[in-house]
Amino acid sequence: MMIVMSANATRQQVDDVVGRVQAFGLGAHYSQGIERCVIGVVGDGRALDRESLLLLPGVDRIVPITRPYKLASREFHPHDTTFALDGVTLGGREIVIIAGPCAVESRSLLLETACAVREAGAHALRGGAFKPRTSPYTFQGLGEEGLELLAEARAVSGLPIVTEVMDGEHVARVAEVADVLQIGARNMQNYALLHAVGASQHPVLLKRGMSATVEELLMSAEYILSHDNQRVFLCERGIRTFETSTRNTTDINAIPVLKAQTHLPVILDPSHSTGNWEFVAAIALAGVAVGADGLMIEVHPNPSAALSDGLQSLKPERFASLVTRVRAVAEAVQRGLAPVPATPVRRSGG
Amino acid sequence: MMIVMSANATRQQVDDVVGRVQAFGLGAHYSQGIERCVIGVVGDGRALDRESLLLLPGVDRIVPITRPYKLASREFHPHDTTFALDGVTLGGREIVIIAGPCAVESRSLLLETACAVREAGAHALRGGAFKPRTSPYTFQGLGEEGLELLAEARAVSGLPIVTEVMDGEHVARVAEVADVLQIGARNMQNYALLHAVGASQHPVLLKRGMSATVEELLMSAEYILSHDNQRVFLCERGIRTFETSTRNTTDINAIPVLKAQTHLPVILDPSHSTGNWEFVAAIALAGVAVGADGLMIEVHPNPSAALSDGLQSLKPERFASLVTRVRAVAEAVQRGLAPVPATPVRRSGG
Amino acid sequence: MMIVMSANATRQQVDDVVGRVQAFGLGAHYSQGIERCVIGVVGDGRALDRESLLLLPGVDRIVPITRPYKLASREFHPHDTTFALDGVTLGGREIVIIAGPCAVESRSLLLETACAVREAGAHALRGGAFKPRTSPYTFQGLGEEGLELLAEARAVSGLPIVTEVMDGEHVARVAEVADVLQIGARNMQNYALLHAVGASQHPVLLKRGMSATVEELLMSAEYILSHDNQRVFLCERGIRTFETSTRNTTDINAIPVLKAQTHLPVILDPSHSTGNWEFVAAIALAGVAVGADGLMIEVHPNPSAALSDGLQSLKPERFASLVTRVRAVAEAVQRGLAPVPATPVRRSGG
Amino acid sequence: MMIVMSANATRQQVDDVVGRVQAFGLGAHYSQGIERCVIGVVGDGRALDRESLLLLPGVDRIVPITRPYKLASREFHPHDTTFALDGVTLGGREIVIIAGPCAVESRSLLLETACAVREAGAHALRGGAFKPRTSPYTFQGLGEEGLELLAEARAVSGLPIVTEVMDGEHVARVAEVADVLQIGARNMQNYALLHAVGASQHPVLLKRGMSATVEELLMSAEYILSHDNQRVFLCERGIRTFETSTRNTTDINAIPVLKAQTHLPVILDPSHSTGNWEFVAAIALAGVAVGADGLMIEVHPNPSAALSDGLQSLKPERFASLVTRVRAVAEAVQRGLAPVPATPVRRSGG
Repeated sequence: MMIVMSANATRQQVDDVVGRVQAFGLGAHYSQGIERCVIGVVGDGRALDRESLLLLPGVDRIVPITRPYKLASREFHPHDTTFALDGVTLGGREIVIIAGPCAVESRSLLLETACAVREAGAHALRGGAFKPRTSPYTFQGLGEEGLELLAEARAVSGLPIVTEVMDGEHVARVAEVADVLQIGARNMQNYALLHAVGASQHPVLLKRGMSATVEELLMSAEYILSHDNQRVFLCERGIRTFETSTRNTTDINAIPVLKAQTHLPVILDPSHSTGNWEFVAAIALAGVAVGADGLMIEVHPNPSAALSDGLQSLKPERFASLVTRVRAVAEAVQRGLAPVPATPVRRSGG
Repeated sequence: MMIVMSANATRQQVDDVVGRVQAFGLGAHYSQGIERCVIGVVGDGRALDRESLLLLPGVDRIVPITRPYKLASREFHPHDTTFALDGVTLGGREIVIIAGPCAVESRSLLLETACAVREAGAHALRGGAFKPRTSPYTFQGLGEEGLELLAEARAVSGLPIVTEVMDGEHVARVAEVADVLQIGARNMQNYALLHAVGASQHPVLLKRGMSATVEELLMSAEYILSHDNQRVFLCERGIRTFETSTRNTTDINAIPVLKAQTHLPVILDPSHSTGNWEFVAAIALAGVAVGADGLMIEVHPNPSAALSDGLQSLKPERFASLVTRVRAVAEAVQRGLAPVPATPVRRSGG
Repeated sequence: MMIVMSANATRQQVDDVVGRVQAFGLGAHYSQGIERCVIGVVGDGRALDRESLLLLPGVDRIVPITRPYKLASREFHPHDTTFALDGVTLGGREIVIIAGPCAVESRSLLLETACAVREAGAHALRGGAFKPRTSPYTFQGLGEEGLELLAEARAVSGLPIVTEVMDGEHVARVAEVADVLQIGARNMQNYALLHAVGASQHPVLLKRGMSATVEELLMSAEYILSHDNQRVFLCERGIRTFETSTRNTTDINAIPVLKAQTHLPVILDPSHSTGNWEFVAAIALAGVAVGADGLMIEVHPNPSAALSDGLQSLKPERFASLVTRVRAVAEAVQRGLAPVPATPVRRSGG
Repeated sequence: MMIVMSANATRQQVDDVVGRVQAFGLGAHYSQGIERCVIGVVGDGRALDRESLLLLPGVDRIVPITRPYKLASREFHPHDTTFALDGVTLGGREIVIIAGPCAVESRSLLLETACAVREAGAHALRGGAFKPRTSPYTFQGLGEEGLELLAEARAVSGLPIVTEVMDGEHVARVAEVADVLQIGARNMQNYALLHAVGASQHPVLLKRGMSATVEELLMSAEYILSHDNQRVFLCERGIRTFETSTRNTTDINAIPVLKAQTHLPVILDPSHSTGNWEFVAAIALAGVAVGADGLMIEVHPNPSAALSDGLQSLKPERFASLVTRVRAVAEAVQRGLAPVPATPVRRSGG
C-alpha cells in the first residue's frame, strides 16, 4: 500500500502517518517527490483499514499495491485448477458444456430436455428448482419437487446436475442432488450463503453479479476458498450497462482477464449475457474463441411456453447445431470438446 | 401490453398472436399502422410471460403498458403512507434523521454515539450487528453480542433501533431488538429474505441495490407489501456508475421519481452514496432540498479508528452542526425536523 | 508516479525500469516491500507516457500520483475564481441563474421568454442557435438567424447571452453575440473546438460530457485554460447510467467534488440532468443546497409546442415560482441570489 | 407511436390528444384496456416531437414503434451492403484486417509498420495524423506531415489508408490521402463533421462513441447516409462501464445486434476495446467468431517507445501470429480471410 500525502502536508503530518503505520507492526518507507511525499507500507496490509489512514491529516490518497484476494490469485498459484465432474475435467484443455432449461417446470419437459442435450453433446444438466424472480407475481420454481425431478433426470440421462441454491438452509439438501451448487448472480455477495457452500466442500459454480467487478467476483470466490473448498469455477453472465439492445452486456474481456488473474476455471453463460436466443450462438462461439473453459446454455423444447426465460432459450435442434459449431471453433483455437461421459443413457442409482 | 409486429409480418402471424392472447383469457385489439400492426392486450397481463409472446413468428417487440408493481404504486394508492416509529412519524411533513455507527464495535463506543446523536437531534439509532463485507479478511460484525448492545443502547438513549438483517433465520431474533429491519443493498433481491421480513410484520427499511433500477426497487418492495406488511420505507444509497471520484453516485433524481411513483416514504443515505465524509453534509442538504423524508447518516466518535466505513463517518460535532443546517434547509422547503422523542425511557449511562 | 513491479520481477528488471525513468531526466526511488518492489518517480511525469513503462518486463502496474491537470487544480490555485458577467459575479457567494429556451425558435418566442425570465429574476439568457440533435430528421436550430435574434434579445432584455458554439469556424461570429460561449456535452472532448474557444479569450461554459468523468471534465477545462483564458465555468448536466426513469442521472456528488478539486465556478443544469420538467425544480433546489454556484434552466412559454426539449422546459410562471424557492434555499445555506442587473440596456420591444 | 394515457385520464383528455395527432396529419386509433386507454398513431411520426405530446394532460408515456433510423435499417434494406476497398471487399464473406500504429510518429516507423502488417496479411493500413488526446500535455499527432507520410506509406505498401479526420475543414485534404475517413469515438455525435464526411462521398469508418447506444450509432450513420453516401461501415471499440480491469468493455453483443439491425458492415477494434495488448488477440478471435466483418488492430514495432497507446499495440510478430489464428477461426465459422491485394502499386522504399 502506498500512502500519497497532499502537496502541502507538513513534515509532522508525514511523521504521524508513519507512526500510525508502524503501530500496526508494518514498515514504512519515505519517497519524497518534487510536489509531495509518498509513504510505502511494507508488510501485509490486507487487514489494515485503509479508510482510517485516509482520515489522517495530510493524507491525499491510499493506493493499494497488493490485490485484496490471495487464494484465488494466480500470482500465488500459477497453475490452472482443474477438477473432475463425473468424469469430465473442468479447467483443462477441453471445453465443457452445461445445458438445460432455465427452471425445472415438469417431469416430462425436464427428462426430454436432459436426453436431448445429452444426445447433442452436453456434459452436464442445468435446471433451477429455486428461481429468484424480480416480480413476486411470476413463477418461483418447484422447490423440493424440482430437486426430486433433477435427481431423476440425473439417473435417466447420466448427466451431472448443476442447480442453484438460494439459501444457506437448503445447502445440505441441494447438495444431495446437485453435483455442482450454483450461486446465482443476485447472491454473489450473499456472504452467509458463500460461507455455507464453502463449508459444504461441494463443487461450486459462482456467477458474477450483474454489476460486480472482476475483483469483487474474485473476493467472493475467496470466501468459498477460505473454507479450503478448492472446487470453484466462475461464470461470466453479462453485466449491467447503459446499453439496452440486449438484456445484459456480455463482458467478454472479463474472460481473458480472469484467466490472467486467477487459476480457477471460467465459463460463459451466453443465454443470460444476451437475454435473447438470436444472439446466444454467436456469443457462445465468441466465448470459446476468447478462451472460456466452458459454456452454460439454456435449452427448452418449447421456448414460447417456458415459464421463465423462454426468450433466451434455444430449441434442442438449434442447440445441437451449436455444439457442432462450438467444436469447430474449439479446434480452431487448439482446444476441443470434452468427451461425453461414456455410460448410462439411464442411471437409476448414483 | 402492446405487441408490436414486425413490418413484414403476415396476416396469419397476426392472427396466431391474437389467438395466443385470447387463450390466456385476455382481450386483443388490432391497430394497423402504415408500416406495421400493433396488438393491444386488454386485461391484467402481469402474470403472462412476455417473453413467450416474443418468440411467436412475426412479433418484433413487446411494450409493457402496466407497471409491474401494484401495491407500491401511487397510481392505485394516491395518498402518502406514513407510520409511527416510536412516536416519530415517517413519511409526513417532517424530516426524520437516523444516525449512528456503521457497525456496532463496542459497548462504550455505541453508547457514546447513541447519546451524542440523540443530543444532536437524531430520531433513531443505526448500527450493524451483522456486516456484509466484500473481503472475508475484514471485520464482519459482532453478531448476537451486537444485538444485545443495541438493545442496551435503545434503553439508554430512548432511540428506536434500525439494524440490518442478512439472513431469514435471524429475522425473528433481530426483530426482538430492532424497531426497523434493514435490508441492505446487496440483499435487495434476496427474495427469501424479503419474504421473511414481509411476514414478520415489522417495519422494514429497504435499501436500493447499487445497480438496481427504481423499478426493481419497487418490485422488491412489492415482495414485502405482498405480505400485507405496509410499514416499508425506501432508501437511496448511491448507484454504481463509471464515475470513480466518489464511491457511489448519489442518484438524487431517484428521490422525486420515487415520490411520484410510490406512496412509500423515501430517505437518503449520503454516507454510502458518497463514501466520503467530506461530501456527506452537502449531499444530506441536497437530499432534504429535493424532497427526501429522512436521512440516514453514519456517525463515529473516532472515524480514523473505525472498524468499517470510517472514511464516510461524521464526528459527532460535525453531525450536530449538520442537523442545524438540515433544519434550515427543511424549513426553506416548507418542511421541518421531526421533534426528538421527549423522554429517554431510562438513561443509565451517558 | 509509482511503478509497481510484479511479485516475481527480477533485480535486473527493476534496474532496467529505473534506467528508463532516469533516461527521461527523472529521479527514481526504490521501495522494497515484502512481496514486491515499488519504484517512485521523482519529477514531473505528466509528459511521460505511462503506458510505455507498463510494457517493460516485470512491471505490474503504474499508479499516477500527480493529477493530470494543473491549471484547473485547486491544489495550485486555492482561491475561488470569480468573474463578472455583465455586472453579475459568477463563482462568488451569490447564486446566478441562466434561463431561456432550449433553442431559439422565433423572434416573438425568444423575446417573450427573455423578458419573462428577466422579470422572474434570471441573470442571463440561454438559447441555442446551433443545436446538436441525435436524429438528422429533427430541428437543427436557426443558425445565423438565431444569432441575430439573440443579439436583439440581449438589447431588449439587458440580459447577457449564453449560447452554444459547435464548430471552430463559428467561434468568432458567435462571440460577437454571446457573452458566454457554451461547449455542449457532446463536444466536451472536441479538442479543436476547445482550443478555439480558449484562444478567443471569451468566457466559456464547459458542459460535462454525459459519460465523462470529473477528471476528464477538468482535463478539457485545462485545454481552455492553457490559452490563458481564465474565464471558464463548468456545468454538471447529468451522466449516462443504467437507470432509465430519468433521461440522465444528475451526478449531484460531482458538484462538491468539483468544488474541492478546482477553483473554477460550477453550475448545475437540472433540465438536462433530469429530462423531465416535473423533476427540474426539486433538482434545482438540491443543486443550490449542495453548493452549486448557479443554475441553468430551460424555460419555454408553451412547452408542448417547443421544437426541442419541450418535456424538460418550465413554463415562465413555474420558473418564477422556482426562483423564489431557490432564494429560500440559497439563504438557508448562507448564500443568496445575485441581484438582477438594474436596468435593461434598452427595451425597444416587449 | 403509441400514446399511453394515465389510468385516470378523462375522456376529454383522450379526445384532445387525438385532436393533436390529427392536426399533424396523422391517424389515431383508440385501444381501451381495463385500466387505461392507449392511442395508436398511424403514419410516419418521425418528425413529430414526441415530447410535446407527453406534456398534454392525461398522457402517461409515449412508446415509439418505428425505429428512428431508416436508411441504416435492415428492415427496409434486407441485403448486406458490401463495397470494395482497393480490391478488397468489405462486408462480404471474408474478413478484412486493418492494422497499423495508433499515430503516425515518424517516416521510418510508419513504413516499417506498413510493410510488416502487409506481409503478415493485413488489407489496409491505419495510422492517425490527427490525434484526439484527453490531456493537452501529450502528443497530438503530426498533422499535415502525418498525411504526407501516410501517402508515402500507401505508395510503398500498396495498402489502402484508414485515417481519422477530426474537423470539417480537413475533410477534403484528408480525403486526398485516405481511402477511408475515420470518425473517432469522441466525434460520433459531432454532427457538423458527420455531414461533412457524408457530403464527401468518400468511404467512412464510423466508430461507436464510448457511451453511445447501438441505436445512437445507427442514428449517426443515418447522418452520413442521408447524403446518399452508401459506403459506411461501423466499428465497435468498447464502451464505458463500471468495470475497470480493462480500459473499456468490449460490447461483443453489439456485433450480432448490429448485424441484425443494419445492412452496413461491422468491424471490431480489440485494441481500444481492451486497452491492453495482452487481451487483444483473444478479443480479436472472439470478434471473428461472433460475426464481425473485419478487425482493426494497433501494431507498433516498439510499443514501449510509442507516443500513444503503446500499451494496446501488438508487436509485428505477435500480429503475424494473430493473423494465422484469425484465419483458423474464420474458417471454423465458414468465413475466411480476404486475399491480400496481389501487388503493391509501387514500392519505392522499404
